Amino acid sequence: MTNVMTNNLKHLISACENQGVTNFVLSPGSRNTPLALLLAERNVNLTVAVDERSAGFFALGLAKASRQPVALVATSGTATANYAPAIAEAHSFHVPLVVLTTDRPQELQEIGAPQTIPQAGMYTTNVKQALTINVQEESPDVTEYIDYQVQQLVRQTKLAPRGPVQINLPLRKPLLPELGTPWPVVVQQDFGHITAQLDAASLAQLTQRLEHKRCLITIGPTDHPLPMQLLQEVADQLDAPIIADVLSSVRGSASTVPVQQLLKLPEQLQPEIVLRFGGTPVSASLLPWLKQQHVPVIQIGADYLGKDHSRWAYTSYNLSATDFLQQLATTDIQGTAHYRADWEHSFQPTLAADQKQLTAQELPRLLSHLTPEHQLFLANSLTVRNFDQAFAPAHPVQVHGNRGANGIDGTISSAVGMANQQSTWLVTGDLAFFHDLTGLQLARQTNAHLTIVVVNNDGGGIFSLLPQAEAPYFEQLFGTPQALNLKAAAAFVNAQYHQVTTVSAFQRLVQEPWEGLRIIEVPANRAHLSAEYPEGLA
Amino acid sequence: MTNVMTNNLKHLISACENQGVTNFVLSPGSRNTPLALLLAERNVNLTVAVDERSAGFFALGLAKASRQPVALVATSGTATANYAPAIAEAHSFHVPLVVLTTDRPQELQEIGAPQTIPQAGMYTTNVKQALTINVQEESPDVTEYIDYQVQQLVRQTKLAPRGPVQINLPLRKPLLPELGTPWPVVVQQDFGHITAQLDAASLAQLTQRLEHKRCLITIGPTDHPLPMQLLQEVADQLDAPIIADVLSSVRGSASTVPVQQLLKLPEQLQPEIVLRFGGTPVSASLLPWLKQQHVPVIQIGADYLGKDHSRWAYTSYNLSATDFLQQLATTDIQGTAHYRADWEHSFQPTLAADQKQLTAQELPRLLSHLTPEHQLFLANSLTVRNFDQAFAPAHPVQVHGNRGANGIDGTISSAVGMANQQSTWLVTGDLAFFHDLTGLQLARQTNAHLTIVVVNNDGGGIFSLLPQAEAPYFEQLFGTPQALNLKAAAAFVNAQYHQVTTVSAFQRLVQEPWEGLRIIEVPANRAHLSAEYPEGLA
Repeated sequence: MTNVMTNNLKHLISACENQGVTNFVLSPGSRNTPLALLLAERNVNLTVAVDERSAGFFALGLAKASRQPVALVATSGTATANYAPAIAEAHSFHVPLVVLTTDRPQELQEIGAPQTIPQAGMYTTNVKQALTINVQEESPDVTEYIDYQVQQLVRQTKLAPRGPVQINLPLRKPLLPELGTPWPVVVQQDFGHITAQLDAASLAQLTQRLEHKRCLITIGPTDHPLPMQLLQEVADQLDAPIIADVLSSVRGSASTVPVQQLLKLPEQLQPEIVLRFGGTPVSASLLPWLKQQHVPVIQIGADYLGKDHSRWAYTSYNLSATDFLQQLATTDIQGTAHYRADWEHSFQPTLAADQKQLTAQELPRLLSHLTPEHQLFLANSLTVRNFDQAFAPAHPVQVHGNRGANGIDGTISSAVGMANQQSTWLVTGDLAFFHDLTGLQLARQTNAHLTIVVVNNDGGGIFSLLPQAEAPYFEQLFGTPQALNLKAAAAFVNAQYHQVTTVSAFQRLVQEPWEGLRIIEVPANRAHLSAEYPEGLA
Repeated sequence: MTNVMTNNLKHLISACENQGVTNFVLSPGSRNTPLALLLAERNVNLTVAVDERSAGFFALGLAKASRQPVALVATSGTATANYAPAIAEAHSFHVPLVVLTTDRPQELQEIGAPQTIPQAGMYTTNVKQALTINVQEESPDVTEYIDYQVQQLVRQTKLAPRGPVQINLPLRKPLLPELGTPWPVVVQQDFGHITAQLDAASLAQLTQRLEHKRCLITIGPTDHPLPMQLLQEVADQLDAPIIADVLSSVRGSASTVPVQQLLKLPEQLQPEIVLRFGGTPVSASLLPWLKQQHVPVIQIGADYLGKDHSRWAYTSYNLSATDFLQQLATTDIQGTAHYRADWEHSFQPTLAADQKQLTAQELPRLLSHLTPEHQLFLANSLTVRNFDQAFAPAHPVQVHGNRGANGIDGTISSAVGMANQQSTWLVTGDLAFFHDLTGLQLARQTNAHLTIVVVNNDGGGIFSLLPQAEAPYFEQLFGTPQALNLKAAAAFVNAQYHQVTTVSAFQRLVQEPWEGLRIIEVPANRAHLSAEYPEGLA
């Protein structure tokens, strides 16, 4: 236990140092004993200030003069509340502070323990971010999280609008760390350049990382269309394949390769560097694979800074995709010649045999001929994963989904909101459909031009592909069959209703113009799912 | 009362429209009646969705498809809690939403009233900003605040990282608005360009606004030094005078004019346009004067977006000062020829007669000869105002103060934090000095190279220049004399101590090298203050 705490706190201190924290201001107490001793052993610039209010303002002065983030280290209880005035000033004047508040462990909260007050998030909106990290949990994952996330938090203090962050650290006794053991080496995150314009040195550094490499471009989900011509131009220049998420709306506009190909590449064709745009990919395999193969990832986009839950993108640029691509396009950089062609040649296209019986897996192919006047909304969870693997539209099509928090709630309503602007196809499972039944009324009321394709496998399909597929009580807890009467639901809102079981019938409905709301039920069988996805989901 | 509410809600709706909100999604109830009726009268794109959870996801879909912020309008109580899932998704996927939650008025909070739950800030960190606005307060200031701040909040939703904001609106009965009355015209805020690089059109628009105009540059407090050469270059090109805040550290580096001159300019020399850099000026007159004279202000700087409490900077650029100036410098723009010279000629320099008796007002002049190795820290409130008026250093000097939240707490500690890096002069009144007594110990302990000049007028000086100067109980409540023994305080921390009453003695101490901590007491008399500032503070 002591070992775990010692190791994780060393990682935390080193992560702070990696992002420019050289000054630590400590107000000693019992609870922050391990940090105090480790900071002393580390031989950082350590100032001991017994009054926390003074300590806070002292750190503020240090940060203002040095223009670097300064760390504060408090013991638990009212000690932490004394930082509040300096934190408020730092917030208002944009001064970077990293506030480390040690805390009592969970079993002492709100139960009359001494020096225990609610510390998590106590500085409210006067800090840019507030996080609680339990450094006594024994897990390599937690340690790696500390390496990554603490650097991101320190970075936050330096991005406009600058300001303080809080890291709250519950600690359980014994509090004495192990001294004299080796310190870890924490890989330094490289944040490129954080102002608008890459200076010559930053641009040179970037091109050096890409030059003559096998470059891959990945595009995650985004509502904001990328500058397609520029993207294709840069991809051509780098000879880089593009893996485009189904929710990137890039498919159909640029030449892309499926993520499944990446996973099967022979070693000599594996990418050597990745430019990553957009949010978290629908594919659950992409980011872990890149990390596992140690392919460096450069992340681009002001919306996505610090949002790589694979903790692998150690370089990121606070630039819009357009700004980044424009600046890269000004260079005469080249990737590895023929890389994209070699990649593509290594895969024989396999043509899916036409099936008489309609299955959910057929839907991406059958909807690939939607014209650009249509847009597509894909529900969580199995539907969007299914389409990510197989949807290859012939034309550019706007594709949307709720992939921020990935809930199955509100699906119909979200699609109806979109259908106000454009003809829309929603593909959903029966559970997500049921979960937003009131959304149907909205569709009726707004005269939404919407087709809802419900793959009705009577319950939660994705669980059949997850470990609990073999668990007891499966149907009761995970399968949750609802025996929905979709025809009656359609009648309730005056919608057209079709039950479709053959490919040809579905194809007819894809071609056919329709008015208002239309519900197409595609019966499916959960029992067949694991056979239909023999390799699981990418 | 109804009139006030009607008028302010019209301003709120118009402010939303000004920033691109064309879609409103309403879930009707009693409390949001006035918004409902006014939105219907306004003939906006209004969708009525009775289930708030669906409404939230519908608005999300609308915002995703249109890439414009969409407004949600809820009644009070659990209705607002139903937005939480869609707001969480919008936060995670960076979708702009403006969440208008109507609320019960203050006298119904936490007292058993129906449909009343804590709504202010209820979405925690899932929204970028949360604000409560009482639209039933009769005050032109509140109305103008709504015009300005609501536009700023809507803008926030569109700046990276994009996301939702909440505006909570307590409403007291009667809730029926006045229909059929005219709608106000709300001036549209112009946010220039929000990506890194000004495109040709934006740059042309900017230069058009400045071309052949009498341009003024103002620089507010900042810890981050401006690119001085570039600033001077652009100022020369525009023939623009620079008003530099005492905390901008620009004085001594560039040629600047005092803010007092601005206030006395003959009409034909008044500026026609202002480029404003940095934070809120120390001078309390500058921003109100510009507004009163209707001089347009262009605000620059990613740290300062939406932070103009004068509510007058209706154009702002999300660019660093360096990026902005660099792009402006690429143009061949000219201001009004000789403007700076004409301005300067209109003022005869008046040389202050040398005084034998040392007063606080002499200090800025006496400290003007600090060399660049020194830095200066100025305490709130009277000291920094005094220096802002009269400090004109011969060389560039770093000048600091806590002017984010402007507290008088933590002054000594902040200066000590700085003195770790560089020889530092702190000028403070006796109250701010006393307020951070524990900071002295930090100075002793860190061997700070610090001189503290304490203007000891035995209490709160600035109040003598404020309206309460004539109030009863003045000494007890505002004067608050502390009868400090500064010599004993110096002895307590082993500091050098000098009491100085003449100019020559002070000048000697300015020249004299010193070790460690030094306290110079300058006795002063609060009773003389109003005579010493016959024109008040600029």
